[in-house]
Amino acid sequence: MNNLVYKKFHLEFFYELNHMLKIGNVKHSIRKYPKDQIIFLTGSRCQSIGILLKGEVKIEHLTETGSRILIRNLKQYNIFGEILLFSPEPYYPYDIVAKSNCEILFISKDSLLRILSENPNILEKYLQHIAESYHQINKLIKLKSQKTLRHKLAYYFLNYEHLNKENHSLIIKSKTELANLLGVERQSLFRELKNLENEGYLELNKKEVILKNLTYFASLVD
Amino acid sequence: MNNLVYKKFHLEFFYELNHMLKIGNVKHSIRKYPKDQIIFLTGSRCQSIGILLKGEVKIEHLTETGSRILIRNLKQYNIFGEILLFSPEPYYPYDIVAKSNCEILFISKDSLLRILSENPNILEKYLQHIAESYHQINKLIKLKSQKTLRHKLAYYFLNYEHLNKENHSLIIKSKTELANLLGVERQSLFRELKNLENEGYLELNKKEVILKNLTYFASLVD
Repeated sequence: MNNLVYKKFHLEFFYELNHMLKIGNVKHSIRKYPKDQIIFLTGSRCQSIGILLKGEVKIEHLTETGSRILIRNLKQYNIFGEILLFSPEPYYPYDIVAKSNCEILFISKDSLLRILSENPNILEKYLQHIAESYHQINKLIKLKSQKTLRHKLAYYFLNYEHLNKENHSLIIKSKTELANLLGVERQSLFRELKNLENEGYLELNKKEVILKNLTYFASLVD
Repeated sequence: MNNLVYKKFHLEFFYELNHMLKIGNVKHSIRKYPKDQIIFLTGSRCQSIGILLKGEVKIEHLTETGSRILIRNLKQYNIFGEILLFSPEPYYPYDIVAKSNCEILFISKDSLLRILSENPNILEKYLQHIAESYHQINKLIKLKSQKTLRHKLAYYFLNYEHLNKENHSLIIKSKTELANLLGVERQSLFRELKNLENEGYLELNKKEVILKNLTYFASLVD
């Protein structure tokens, strides 16, 4: 699914779920958090799913050395804990932090199971949603499994960003985020992009990258 | 979950599901495949879950260059397609191949949704099963995200194999499979293990590895 379809899917899922919460008299709670508040610390037990009603949330990994690595940003109607909740070891692997003032709807495991059992349509959507998360994580594994930074970049260009079909251009929104995703220093990323430009495989234009030789990049990806 | 608990879980899940298939009069089919037969080719549409009743199945990635990389082995009562089935793009990303003569039970999406809707207990187990797969794949990402082969080995020692608590020993069943998992040549793996032994961090004893300095390995893993 592309981002737009996914957003629409989240919205629809939320409306149906919300409808069921109301007519089914299912227990749930809504809580507010100020910007920068930690909602769940790494290691705390996940006892409900959270649906973001307002604001933004970030999922962060706190390393041994004290630095914070961004794992994912969540926006309106995004869900968290939806898979973890059913794990035999349901402990948050990362910190969940309010990126802005936000409002979150919580549904406990029992309530959720009741809703899913009573509504095959919502159940199917829930399983679809999980499949989509799984697909994303599989893509991440393939990205991380590529041998070199150049191979990783090729995979990223072809599978992560929206590639304009007419001129083979794409936009890298944040080079810092991209360096984090690829697991390299910003400097190494810049150097490799420059190398690729010097060798004539792409053209850099501020945030825009134009792939001059699509076949080359496709040949790098297994 | 460790392997034993997981095996028991699979068995219980299968019995309950099988019971429902019988009393609920739910459509399903059982097919037999001879050794080496391709059950599903990469790119074919996933329309049902498969539960392995007899024999073994392997999931393989066929690379551009024609080599085959083992992704996973499946044994009795293991399930495949359980997440993919609900994906918006439900196409097998890998080949599913009979490793021995085998017998597989197939349940279609509609039948499965009916069973899950009618049995909250089976639904919860199904979601648990998915959570466990997700946990495994997350571990794989963390393994692949470690910076160097040495860091990857440290993560592997501490999170993948059963570490004997008394003498800090573990068994590497197959060095070829481990090299594949880590994404390196067998030679590089041997060299790094030897280096670690020469530096006094571990002791090699055929298939057994004894970690002499657990703190060192723990310090490598983020």
